[in-house]
Amino acid sequence: MQINNMTYKLLVNTSDETGLIYKISNLLYQRNLNIDENGEFVETEQDRFFMRTVFSGDADIESLEKELHEILPSDSVIKIHDNKPKRIVLMATKENHCLGDLLVRSEGLRLNANIIAVISNYDNLQNFTERFGIPFHYVSHENKSREQHEGEVVELIKSLNPDYIVLAKYMRILSANFVETFKERIINIHHSFLPAFIGANPYKQAFERGVKIIGATSHFVTNDLDEGPIIAQNVIPVSHKESWKEMRNIGWDVEKNVLARALNLVLDDRVFIHNNKTIIF
Amino acid sequence: MQINNMTYKLLVNTSDETGLIYKISNLLYQRNLNIDENGEFVETEQDRFFMRTVFSGDADIESLEKELHEILPSDSVIKIHDNKPKRIVLMATKENHCLGDLLVRSEGLRLNANIIAVISNYDNLQNFTERFGIPFHYVSHENKSREQHEGEVVELIKSLNPDYIVLAKYMRILSANFVETFKERIINIHHSFLPAFIGANPYKQAFERGVKIIGATSHFVTNDLDEGPIIAQNVIPVSHKESWKEMRNIGWDVEKNVLARALNLVLDDRVFIHNNKTIIF
Amino acid sequence: MQINNMTYKLLVNTSDETGLIYKISNLLYQRNLNIDENGEFVETEQDRFFMRTVFSGDADIESLEKELHEILPSDSVIKIHDNKPKRIVLMATKENHCLGDLLVRSEGLRLNANIIAVISNYDNLQNFTERFGIPFHYVSHENKSREQHEGEVVELIKSLNPDYIVLAKYMRILSANFVETFKERIINIHHSFLPAFIGANPYKQAFERGVKIIGATSHFVTNDLDEGPIIAQNVIPVSHKESWKEMRNIGWDVEKNVLARALNLVLDDRVFIHNNKTIIF
Amino acid sequence: MQINNMTYKLLVNTSDETGLIYKISNLLYQRNLNIDENGEFVETEQDRFFMRTVFSGDADIESLEKELHEILPSDSVIKIHDNKPKRIVLMATKENHCLGDLLVRSEGLRLNANIIAVISNYDNLQNFTERFGIPFHYVSHENKSREQHEGEVVELIKSLNPDYIVLAKYMRILSANFVETFKERIINIHHSFLPAFIGANPYKQAFERGVKIIGATSHFVTNDLDEGPIIAQNVIPVSHKESWKEMRNIGWDVEKNVLARALNLVLDDRVFIHNNKTIIF
Repeated sequence: MQINNMTYKLLVNTSDETGLIYKISNLLYQRNLNIDENGEFVETEQDRFFMRTVFSGDADIESLEKELHEILPSDSVIKIHDNKPKRIVLMATKENHCLGDLLVRSEGLRLNANIIAVISNYDNLQNFTERFGIPFHYVSHENKSREQHEGEVVELIKSLNPDYIVLAKYMRILSANFVETFKERIINIHHSFLPAFIGANPYKQAFERGVKIIGATSHFVTNDLDEGPIIAQNVIPVSHKESWKEMRNIGWDVEKNVLARALNLVLDDRVFIHNNKTIIF
Repeated sequence: MQINNMTYKLLVNTSDETGLIYKISNLLYQRNLNIDENGEFVETEQDRFFMRTVFSGDADIESLEKELHEILPSDSVIKIHDNKPKRIVLMATKENHCLGDLLVRSEGLRLNANIIAVISNYDNLQNFTERFGIPFHYVSHENKSREQHEGEVVELIKSLNPDYIVLAKYMRILSANFVETFKERIINIHHSFLPAFIGANPYKQAFERGVKIIGATSHFVTNDLDEGPIIAQNVIPVSHKESWKEMRNIGWDVEKNVLARALNLVLDDRVFIHNNKTIIF
Repeated sequence: MQINNMTYKLLVNTSDETGLIYKISNLLYQRNLNIDENGEFVETEQDRFFMRTVFSGDADIESLEKELHEILPSDSVIKIHDNKPKRIVLMATKENHCLGDLLVRSEGLRLNANIIAVISNYDNLQNFTERFGIPFHYVSHENKSREQHEGEVVELIKSLNPDYIVLAKYMRILSANFVETFKERIINIHHSFLPAFIGANPYKQAFERGVKIIGATSHFVTNDLDEGPIIAQNVIPVSHKESWKEMRNIGWDVEKNVLARALNLVLDDRVFIHNNKTIIF
Repeated sequence: MQINNMTYKLLVNTSDETGLIYKISNLLYQRNLNIDENGEFVETEQDRFFMRTVFSGDADIESLEKELHEILPSDSVIKIHDNKPKRIVLMATKENHCLGDLLVRSEGLRLNANIIAVISNYDNLQNFTERFGIPFHYVSHENKSREQHEGEVVELIKSLNPDYIVLAKYMRILSANFVETFKERIINIHHSFLPAFIGANPYKQAFERGVKIIGATSHFVTNDLDEGPIIAQNVIPVSHKESWKEMRNIGWDVEKNVLARALNLVLDDRVFIHNNKTIIF
């Protein structure tokens, strides 16, 4: 998967019909574009067609997109991404494990994104963040209504204009309005193996249930709390020996890895959202 | 962990106080018994002490047990197991994956137990079972009340006098009476990563939720459906590509392994039950 | 991935050039065949193109294959498989865990293949095999040269005409001639996480090295012992507590699962062999 | 495992004989010390006894240790650790993933140790390290013999007087003298699933072999390169899609987690070294 600067990723989500791959690949062929990697999946319950094509060459993206719309079904969602790093905003509260992992990764050039800011409702992580040369925006929620606080955050995010918002352990519930404003652009890490232990303090719930494995789930945020499309999950064994706080510490290692994995998939334009599920190439 | 015929396993579950290990090990020392392996755990919420000691030598088990009761707190639960294979009864319905795994394991001398019978409410697995030289008891539930059918099964199990009853995909819900009759002796395999997807058709639930990992859980059966003390769990990755039936097939491989692992732990007298959890050495 | 009786799998392995997907999909489109699933991968070191296409419809396979050869590069390897169960021969020696797993799976309709025979150089597993209604061929190696014994086995296999030969713990080394005769059709399970612990008694080697994880590897057999293209691998944790025989028992559970997984991938025509590696869709 | 300030960990490594647990627990009982957790293991090949006991109370450690030596076999190795954070020195070269993980963990109070310094033969990570308030010692190897360079590093480490030295991707081979000087106190992370891919560039080796799983190994350093006692290992799946550089990036996530896990085990006094293996409670 060596990728040069003229590499693009085409994502097509459309209703299935015969000849779609032919039509798309024909168009690319006519324009002298080479397909480096191709994945296709048909969801048979609703006959929905998903294709991710990595192609390279000298492309006029605008006219290509236009022509694709002409030859594909009218309900097609077509996206063409170039290889430029995406702009992301991180949100956090007080814990540094997910935030720190992303900052270290970014500095080590292992995150194909520009972290343009960190936003928090506390100032605990300000010094930590700024050390990495990343702007930190402290938007306190104190003495503000939820609506007012969120309004400020929304305005701030809009002004930063990110491609994605990453909730790196941001411990406040987002309103329907917030979610709608940045639809399909908010990625969360939930500290349980969803749908187990929905809601508050999942590690304590896991401890009390006596489970032998705990996990973490990264998902897109929708209005239904902890119910959005799952991108990545992973687990780790625990035993009767761990207190719930020890389970939490163990779980934090899973959280940071799952969030990074999910984020890398999204940043590499590998993820479709369909019916509260993801299709990942 | 080489084990000779004079090896015993002592399990003590008692309220914690200073000197318990000293008292127990002193007694074994006085009787010239050698400790080969020792595990101890104190549950600090209720100050409960658990110890599993593998010892060897020439032991008078009855008098040892009596003396242990004399020196330990009055609420002590004391068990001494020799190394004889335990007697188990398997129950199944129609699927052969868990049953087959245990039968093959047993024939290959990889199960430290005697499978004394298989009981089923269908006759589908009769020929399959009998090939392995294991008696098959077909107790149909047709034209019988639940009470009546269970009564027959209970009588049959009582007559077989097993140490443990293994539900190797027995797809009927057991009554409170049944569970009470064989308390802490019934081991089930549940086809999900509990507590996710409690109830019917967990693979379909998992498919619909779009999870990226599915799992299985082996647990002791209590009155609360799918809520008993968990012995072992494991998971396996899935993706959007699998239909729910394919997920089920993938999950079946996890089920059989988790059940076998849990069963081996129980057969090796490694599992304490405490407050709807297990403590496993 | 619902598959009807008119579903086919097309596998193309060719040198890369622009327009391959277009050419192939065009041909299918002209013949009114629908692409249900498509995976494509370009190996960039040698510019090699691999494509697996699941298509359905009313196909004249012979003429389709001919036409594909006409439009694709001359070095193309093109295979079109229908959905009929493949014919497999299992070979084993004395251990029943891999053999038993495949037999139980097959009887439970969870193996998309017909097991047409089991061959062994011992008769230990004869009764076990025949219970499942599968012919058992005992070809003793006693008082025979290696060449003579293998010659008999080769003749037997040729007469059975299987698509694949599965070494389900067949503990004899195969000659170059044997491997060449059934080239790319022999699947083995090796009892270590290759390339760790090549050679004899890998569990003892693992025990002596004090590893914390053991594993198993399923691979196509080539002339270089334990060096063929890897299809699937998996691992399981161990600790200082296990003797090497206990490690072996633990490992056997991994072996049987890895072998079944690899076999399912091969039976579903998902595996390309390229330069001593596999490409798996 | 709630631990107060008067909690101690006793580690006994001695030749096995009857009554050891009794003798030790008796001594603790006489001194009114409470055993909170106890693990014991007998290595049967050489009849070696290992015990780790967590006890609490008002202890005179010096006299306790003296008395233990009096009652235990003369070849006993006895250690009693209090609960104070250990002093560790990290060594790194240019990559920030392991170093960054430990620094973030330490700042988040998830590492029971004081990182007293980072030492490197390059200055690439100086700014990165110092941001966390940790002293960075740049000891260049340029224009110096290996002996001379190592001599400087040894002197520096001696002056820092750490309990453990953690090679967080320190890419230079250590001499026998260095290893001997800090015997059983140097912890390394090796970028493969040892003993697979010993030596240089294991990710490239893994890529070329076409493995389906890669891993990492944390071990104590001995004179034999990549051959010291293994503390922890873990793996992650890969496929034909990844280039070896992508495998390396994937592997780095495993490396940092395995190193942290191994380090936590060592810092919690859970690890015995015995015959080039570890025994871990």
